[in-house]
Amino acid sequence: MSVKPTPPTLRWSDPPEGPAVVLLDQTRLPSEQVYLRCADVGALVAAIQRLVVRGAPLLGVAGAYGVALAAMRADDVPAAAEVLAEARPTAVNLARGVRRALSAYHGAGGGRSGAKAALGAARSLEREDMAACDAIARLGTGLVSGRGRVLTHCNTGSLVTTGVGTAYGIIREAHRGGHLTTLWIDETRPLLQGARLTAYEAKRDGIPHSVLADNAAASIFAQSEVDVVIVGADRVVADGSVANKVGTYGLAVLAHHHDVPFVVAAPTSTIDLETPDASGITVEQRGGEEIRRIAGTLLTPAESPVYNPAFDVTPADLVSAIVTERGVVRPVDREHLAELVGDERARECIDKSNYVRR
Amino acid sequence: MSVKPTPPTLRWSDPPEGPAVVLLDQTRLPSEQVYLRCADVGALVAAIQRLVVRGAPLLGVAGAYGVALAAMRADDVPAAAEVLAEARPTAVNLARGVRRALSAYHGAGGGRSGAKAALGAARSLEREDMAACDAIARLGTGLVSGRGRVLTHCNTGSLVTTGVGTAYGIIREAHRGGHLTTLWIDETRPLLQGARLTAYEAKRDGIPHSVLADNAAASIFAQSEVDVVIVGADRVVADGSVANKVGTYGLAVLAHHHDVPFVVAAPTSTIDLETPDASGITVEQRGGEEIRRIAGTLLTPAESPVYNPAFDVTPADLVSAIVTERGVVRPVDREHLAELVGDERARECIDKSNYVRR
Repeated sequence: MSVKPTPPTLRWSDPPEGPAVVLLDQTRLPSEQVYLRCADVGALVAAIQRLVVRGAPLLGVAGAYGVALAAMRADDVPAAAEVLAEARPTAVNLARGVRRALSAYHGAGGGRSGAKAALGAARSLEREDMAACDAIARLGTGLVSGRGRVLTHCNTGSLVTTGVGTAYGIIREAHRGGHLTTLWIDETRPLLQGARLTAYEAKRDGIPHSVLADNAAASIFAQSEVDVVIVGADRVVADGSVANKVGTYGLAVLAHHHDVPFVVAAPTSTIDLETPDASGITVEQRGGEEIRRIAGTLLTPAESPVYNPAFDVTPADLVSAIVTERGVVRPVDREHLAELVGDERARECIDKSNYVRR
Repeated sequence: MSVKPTPPTLRWSDPPEGPAVVLLDQTRLPSEQVYLRCADVGALVAAIQRLVVRGAPLLGVAGAYGVALAAMRADDVPAAAEVLAEARPTAVNLARGVRRALSAYHGAGGGRSGAKAALGAARSLEREDMAACDAIARLGTGLVSGRGRVLTHCNTGSLVTTGVGTAYGIIREAHRGGHLTTLWIDETRPLLQGARLTAYEAKRDGIPHSVLADNAAASIFAQSEVDVVIVGADRVVADGSVANKVGTYGLAVLAHHHDVPFVVAAPTSTIDLETPDASGITVEQRGGEEIRRIAGTLLTPAESPVYNPAFDVTPADLVSAIVTERGVVRPVDREHLAELVGDERARECIDKSNYVRR
């Protein structure tokens, strides 16, 4: 269970070759498996912005290794940390991973010792993320038993975590337990992470699946062909609002309209209690060429004006449950989130009962 | 108003060059304006299936000209009519246009006279469709005044009718009247008729617009950036269920959730009172390659299983109004539809009052 499926998506490269952060270039999957070696922070930031590496949990790990990389190179570490933390605005994990490694660096007095400490912090984060994935998969599987037709959006598997994934980890575990009959995969425009990456993982894992245009999801709800929706998250704020890949909110509205449970899977590292509500979430707006072109082919008239948010925000009242490595938050509200994340007694408070239809 | 914007999308070619049906190849827009000459029914059927020509009203006209073409060539006209009528299953207009021309052919005793009669029927249908577009645009404009931010899906303009379009005709007329501030255009996967064709028409007509991934529509509803949704239809059946391009139903659910009016524009030739309800609508399932590839580029792992319906069905209770050339049906139900379409007194019964928020 805790063995991460190949290929590795992020790897720290030690001297003599390194130091460097080596990334599987996700923009080129599934047609090519190409690794990109980022030997300085500038290269890593560019890779993050180009979505070579993506997904909230993995961005956190990448950010932490980025600080270690700057420290190993004896760069200006606080400046590097700032650039890394701001490379993408929506996922809270990136800034958090950066902060954790930076704090370890400072704690050890900077310099050579600080570099070692930052690297240690990044490695710890990597291990914790892997363990969180396992726990989420285990805790979430009960939500799928008896609900074999699962719809998912974007990509939430081994490519966006250092483990088996968040939402996809649950799906994979449900499949291994014989609970899954069909996985519906939204293609997830504009960058097609569902069609390119989730379909690739589902194929690799032998999970029966169908890829659909995001448009077509409504029609499978109408035909009662979806039993549960499971998605990941880029940030969950204190009132339970969930920022995730654009299109998630539309699915939540559809699930609500058809009385289908809508489940979010995210490690507690993605939960941001410091932001009170959705108004504090910056939704990244990306360039128009992602809409205007696919693989270089122009789809619209040249220079068509485009609206291209990377994320949307789903309010808590449309979310049936949030599965974290510490337990299932349900109902999703300020109190239950704070209870789970806020203090060490959380483990005793989590709801471990069987999943009840909303 | 009744002048159809260039380029012509369908043209009958007389001898000596003809007879033939000449089609603007919509699969190659907006990058190329290429005309395809269909000199026999086999070529026309292939063009219809490949979506060289598309959209319910224009399919009706194409079907009628197809029968005339078969008659001019002294082919087996009833056999040609059958193949044409079944080229695509969802839009009712195709079979109707075919039936009308076939009936004119038989009514004139077949042969040379029948061919002339079939051609006359096709020409009448073309003129009627152009006039219906004008009436729809005029009747529908009131729905946009004071509701300047319009969301539309797929393509419903001069490329799918012989006139100014259905939903798009209303949008264009609202723009000319100074009522429109923004047109949101869903790109409309898989074949991108919104991105390719509606954006092309909006640009040509100087309408301020933004193209978005279908996924992103939910987020503009959430931000209260949509005042009204206007779409076309491929078939409206007796209980008011609307078959239209896949994705329409999801927009209707979003509009309902956000209390935004959802308006369908369609000529009465698209209303099919002989089919009692949605269960009688055949939804065309199209090939997987439309999802797996764009412009030849593979988007998914090769041979990924795909779900690719061309249409979905929106129930009447999610439709605020249907604008036809004879008037606005509101509320949308069996009685009001029958009243409008069913008898000649319909013109007296239509609701011409100003649009009232649902």
